[in-house]
Amino acid sequence: MRQSKFFTKTRKEVSADEVSRNAELLIRAGFVHKEMAGVYSYLPLGLRVLRKIENIIREEMDNVGGQEVLLSSFQPKENWEKTGRWESMDDLYKVVDSSGREVALGPTHEEIVVPILKNYVSSHKDFPSNPPLSIYQIQNKFRMELRAKSGMLRGREFLMKDMYSFHTSKKDFEEFYTKMQGVYKTIFSRVGIGHLTYMTFASGGTFSKYSHEFQTISSVGEDTIYVDEASNLALNKEVLNDEVLSQLNLKKEKLVEQKSIEVGNIFDLKTKYSKPFDLSFTDSEGEKHIVLMGCYGIGLSRLLGTVVEVLSDDKGIIWPESIAPYAIHLLLLGEDENVKKEAEKIYETLKKSGIEVLFDDRGGVTAGEKFADSDLFGIPLRVVVSVRSIKEGGVEIKKRNEEKGKVVSLDDLLKICSKNSTN
Amino acid sequence: MRQSKFFTKTRKEVSADEVSRNAELLIRAGFVHKEMAGVYSYLPLGLRVLRKIENIIREEMDNVGGQEVLLSSFQPKENWEKTGRWESMDDLYKVVDSSGREVALGPTHEEIVVPILKNYVSSHKDFPSNPPLSIYQIQNKFRMELRAKSGMLRGREFLMKDMYSFHTSKKDFEEFYTKMQGVYKTIFSRVGIGHLTYMTFASGGTFSKYSHEFQTISSVGEDTIYVDEASNLALNKEVLNDEVLSQLNLKKEKLVEQKSIEVGNIFDLKTKYSKPFDLSFTDSEGEKHIVLMGCYGIGLSRLLGTVVEVLSDDKGIIWPESIAPYAIHLLLLGEDENVKKEAEKIYETLKKSGIEVLFDDRGGVTAGEKFADSDLFGIPLRVVVSVRSIKEGGVEIKKRNEEKGKVVSLDDLLKICSKNSTN
Repeated sequence: MRQSKFFTKTRKEVSADEVSRNAELLIRAGFVHKEMAGVYSYLPLGLRVLRKIENIIREEMDNVGGQEVLLSSFQPKENWEKTGRWESMDDLYKVVDSSGREVALGPTHEEIVVPILKNYVSSHKDFPSNPPLSIYQIQNKFRMELRAKSGMLRGREFLMKDMYSFHTSKKDFEEFYTKMQGVYKTIFSRVGIGHLTYMTFASGGTFSKYSHEFQTISSVGEDTIYVDEASNLALNKEVLNDEVLSQLNLKKEKLVEQKSIEVGNIFDLKTKYSKPFDLSFTDSEGEKHIVLMGCYGIGLSRLLGTVVEVLSDDKGIIWPESIAPYAIHLLLLGEDENVKKEAEKIYETLKKSGIEVLFDDRGGVTAGEKFADSDLFGIPLRVVVSVRSIKEGGVEIKKRNEEKGKVVSLDDLLKICSKNSTN
Repeated sequence: MRQSKFFTKTRKEVSADEVSRNAELLIRAGFVHKEMAGVYSYLPLGLRVLRKIENIIREEMDNVGGQEVLLSSFQPKENWEKTGRWESMDDLYKVVDSSGREVALGPTHEEIVVPILKNYVSSHKDFPSNPPLSIYQIQNKFRMELRAKSGMLRGREFLMKDMYSFHTSKKDFEEFYTKMQGVYKTIFSRVGIGHLTYMTFASGGTFSKYSHEFQTISSVGEDTIYVDEASNLALNKEVLNDEVLSQLNLKKEKLVEQKSIEVGNIFDLKTKYSKPFDLSFTDSEGEKHIVLMGCYGIGLSRLLGTVVEVLSDDKGIIWPESIAPYAIHLLLLGEDENVKKEAEKIYETLKKSGIEVLFDDRGGVTAGEKFADSDLFGIPLRVVVSVRSIKEGGVEIKKRNEEKGKVVSLDDLLKICSKNSTN
């Protein structure tokens, strides 16, 4: 893509009401646009990152046999009354049409997915095992957050992956739940924050002992967790008590208090949502049981914001290669015609090699401005074409997270790129 | 994909309140689930079709230089007040939060995209030409339809592609608008309804002479159009008068009245939405002008429903190859162990060849039921493995839109598939 064709530009400043670091950087870089507190639109660069996160998550969900759906945002009030959440959920948006009819604007989809499945299952034979039945979507959610001040970390409208699993036995559920713990670790590693993210024991609400959160260490996090480095586990503050410590065989004095962002959670739902809808099956003896459920959430918008919070420096964002909007930021410096021709040639060569490249081909922009924009964008590899680089035998390459660049030939650049893309 | 793992099943009947043919077939086949009138969830098979339609449209938008974004559903009331549509648009959903603050739930995005662009453009130099600046998204829309009775054809919640183009001259706009007419024809051809779809002159509202609709002939359509076969054009009833006929050089007696479904429309917006936000530019002489705009919509949910309406028979859906959920429906008949092994082998071979195949590997289901399900699903090529087909030298293949099948070898099947996929 040619930067000269982009409709977005970088900005020096954002409006004073934007106090979060992640949104500030994303807005300045032209990745997102703020519509109101907690509501952001994705502009082309931001959407590219979002799609890459989405594809990583989709791959991992498909790997465990997840069946992808796309459920509606509008949800019948009756369903929410059945589970009691029409009244009990404070952050539920209720939409009224001109005939006075009310519907829920979905913050989550238990009330939709359970009635759907009820159409299709009645016997234990309807439940595949290995892998068990799981249904997921990557879809827009709405939650009434009156004080949304954390940029992409807490939205009134946000993109989420929600998966629901269905089981005919506790054993089947537990095996899948354990597998999903590993899948979640893989996802957070793949998007580049695995080293900062801990599986964290948290409250299981009124019906389960624990739920598990995935918490990423960050000074701006709203959660407080206690990390045990040796076991790579953590406890949410809400479950930090002697009973839990002894159950998990953790020593209080070894725990380190940290602020953190909850980037995912998984939950043993037991029969909490299957029971109100009588989602049940008959076993091989003809006896009826209520289906057991688990749910598994990841907020994609929040995950994107978290990566920006924890992987950035004074100059801008530092995207991991796996979710960077482009692999290479190619910068043409100066107005020399030969250099322009060379840069065009390199751009075409990279594109033909299937490498995702953003080409800063803008005229009338200083080298300093181009470097500053490039640092703000945070594309992993910067490739500069200038009179000097050509004189020295090629292009100057510099990784976003390194201080110094070096000059390499175009052939070497292609080798480096193909090596990166097969990693 | 193995059909035995699917959580959906086909159904013989749908609830009596579903009166539309498209929704009836899609629900019976397990492609969608109805949440309420005008609101449908996409189940795995339906989502596969939707994604294919989405990808065709995305390719065509990218081809004309469209820059993809993902704009928010929640939209500031202030923006809608600026254009006057907060009051004037009857089908706008307004959402109130517990603090009393109102927001719009987006039925369209002029009120969002114009203020975004205003951040980035001020001079004629900010507008690329050839291709001109255009921004699009494929995103969920909400519209208050109190009487939604046409299945996927008229939704309260629906997926839409909306593109907006921006121009510094009438000539630039007109060239792009004409190009988009061709792009739309290409899209409707690619999804398989080109032969039934006419570019139709329609009212341009209060500020433009005409808009152009793309209307697909169907007896269930809500629109009435007058088709001129010779020129491949049509007129919407609303503009059928002597003045228009003479302008377009059409003869009334040659026009054929048809019922039709509006599957897309393109619109000359002039300065209707740029003016309220003062989206302007200075020309090379430093003089200020308001930006000219066009908009270009396609409802994806409606398009999917239209394909089902016009391409189906008594037995079920007949998907065009380009948007079919799978290319091949492989049916294993009977419980013979050798046949099972052979079918498994064929399934693996097809998958390895990169062919999208749905494998009906279910046990305990009669051949008649499998054939009926296959006809309902509408996958373009049915491939049957049975004792008989193996005895006769391979598999029995039959296209969904043909009456009779024939037996071919596995090698020949692979040749047919690879030929289809390169078409």
